[in-house]
Amino acid sequence: MTSTDAAMGEHKAAALLERTRDAVDPHLRAAVETLPGAIRRVAKYHFGWQNADGTPASGQAGKAIRPALVLAAARALGGDPDAAVRAAVAVELAHNFTLLHDDVIDEDTTRRHRPTAWAVFGVPDAVITGDAMLALALRLLADDPHPVSAHASVRLTTCVIELCAGQQADCALEDRGPDDVTLDECLAMATAKTGALLGCACALGALYAGAGESAVVAMDGFGREAGLAFQLIDDLIGIWGDTERTGKPVGADLTAHKKSLPVVAALTSGTPAAVELTALYRGAMNTPEEVRAAADAVDRAGGRDWAQITAGDRMARAVHHLSRAVPGAADGGDLLALAEFVTRRTH
Amino acid sequence: MTSTDAAMGEHKAAALLERTRDAVDPHLRAAVETLPGAIRRVAKYHFGWQNADGTPASGQAGKAIRPALVLAAARALGGDPDAAVRAAVAVELAHNFTLLHDDVIDEDTTRRHRPTAWAVFGVPDAVITGDAMLALALRLLADDPHPVSAHASVRLTTCVIELCAGQQADCALEDRGPDDVTLDECLAMATAKTGALLGCACALGALYAGAGESAVVAMDGFGREAGLAFQLIDDLIGIWGDTERTGKPVGADLTAHKKSLPVVAALTSGTPAAVELTALYRGAMNTPEEVRAAADAVDRAGGRDWAQITAGDRMARAVHHLSRAVPGAADGGDLLALAEFVTRRTH
Repeated sequence: MTSTDAAMGEHKAAALLERTRDAVDPHLRAAVETLPGAIRRVAKYHFGWQNADGTPASGQAGKAIRPALVLAAARALGGDPDAAVRAAVAVELAHNFTLLHDDVIDEDTTRRHRPTAWAVFGVPDAVITGDAMLALALRLLADDPHPVSAHASVRLTTCVIELCAGQQADCALEDRGPDDVTLDECLAMATAKTGALLGCACALGALYAGAGESAVVAMDGFGREAGLAFQLIDDLIGIWGDTERTGKPVGADLTAHKKSLPVVAALTSGTPAAVELTALYRGAMNTPEEVRAAADAVDRAGGRDWAQITAGDRMARAVHHLSRAVPGAADGGDLLALAEFVTRRTH
Repeated sequence: MTSTDAAMGEHKAAALLERTRDAVDPHLRAAVETLPGAIRRVAKYHFGWQNADGTPASGQAGKAIRPALVLAAARALGGDPDAAVRAAVAVELAHNFTLLHDDVIDEDTTRRHRPTAWAVFGVPDAVITGDAMLALALRLLADDPHPVSAHASVRLTTCVIELCAGQQADCALEDRGPDDVTLDECLAMATAKTGALLGCACALGALYAGAGESAVVAMDGFGREAGLAFQLIDDLIGIWGDTERTGKPVGADLTAHKKSLPVVAALTSGTPAAVELTALYRGAMNTPEEVRAAADAVDRAGGRDWAQITAGDRMARAVHHLSRAVPGAADGGDLLALAEFVTRRTH
């Protein structure tokens, strides 16, 4: 890809995301308005629409990648994206349900440059608001007269159970020693935790376009593989940083002893650098020298190259799935631009 | 009601609950079996089917009141209870989702005479298993070819949001001072937290019997009012105890400073005993003398009488709703026996 292509792709994705937010936000806000008072307040804070004291905030509710995938998939398969807006809102609510609960479970105190909901309102309110958000997502689909809405509910609930399994596996992996994890487990965890919902978003778009089961399954595969590519790139940024674009400092995941994909690829490489890395992961790893040594060990053990190559491979698989779902290459252009955007290959 | 009537009613309810468990348990177990491994393990522990180490346990998953209400409501309205089994399983899963999360939120360490799931597996696994159980409940309905299943999903998701609001209000009330709560707030909280799901269970049974909207709404009202009567009686037991039948020791709710309905009725009574009770609630209340004094103050302030009278009034309202939903008195007999059973008026 030339840099002109890349710039055009990025422009296209940014425009798509903006258009999605314009189309979806009013419905998302209207849905959140139906929540009971105290829960609504936590939800509005989480989405960045309100400050903790209830005053309006100008923050943005995230990039709306998942709703954009729903609408783009519907459009790619000849459907009316307007008919799929409710599904796009449901997917975004389900995504934010996982963020609320994951922040509690992982004890993360910052999200989108603000204190997390549990850090502001306490664990009970954050758990309860996540629960209500999941129920709201599924009420929107159940209440949708569109003929595929029940099928969409089955896909979304199945996806939520997979997200739960992914989060559970993530916690279990973090509790285990650095020499007690396999790459297959970590790939399965990342697929469940990150790939599943991107796949579900694309599948729901296809469903709402009236696509047949094989196109729906191929769309799910496209989103899943793009999601895994995204996770791999995100994990690389978690080690080598990208403070300018993502705000993640160099070595953030290493200091946190995170068993991210490049780290586990390195730990399980059978190289001398793997032994060094294992020893570092057993220690405190809180000095800049140790973090640098760990990043260097991941690199020498082949974890960095592996993650880059695997991300490319997963994107190739995503493109293959897309070509099966959408016969005309031009029709899949928006989806491809979004996938390139999330994997940060074009920006 | 004579003691013979009461004994017959109790026998009827016990037989109904046993029949319900026989009909519902295999489907409930089959649904739980579809959960991913680590989550399934927590779920099976929670239901009392397995010990913490994964060995089989003979414990019972609870009395199955809510599934029994679903099936009895379907039968009362001339429906085939077999067609409503899936809805009964969904309601039971939704109920157990709330138990898993409420135990985390309330930091309760014991349920059904065993350590709670979070106490055994940790907060993350308990939260995640609750999430998956809610998604599973709604997947069962979404996947149900019965023509009312989407309508049932709307009712169940709406109910879950109300349960969330009830749990949130409960937490908020517990955080407030003893002179800063009103009886109306507490009644609204109890209706949302306890009445809503009993009402939903009855409404789903009516839906699956093909009943019209007015009968469905009346059935919801029946379950709600019976649920509130149940809560009032349960609150009385939380003060004056019923160690033989429920395992609750005398004064349990008082030691925990719980703002239960009779307590709030007493606190807001404007009597001299209310002043005494407020002072006791401000203190540690950890000696048997203090707990006895608090129970006595609730009684003298009229909280005990109020709760007993209000429970009776709510049961009368429940019966009125039932008569509107089910024209033939005999057809509502099973529902009435179940309502009497949960409010412990017959045992």
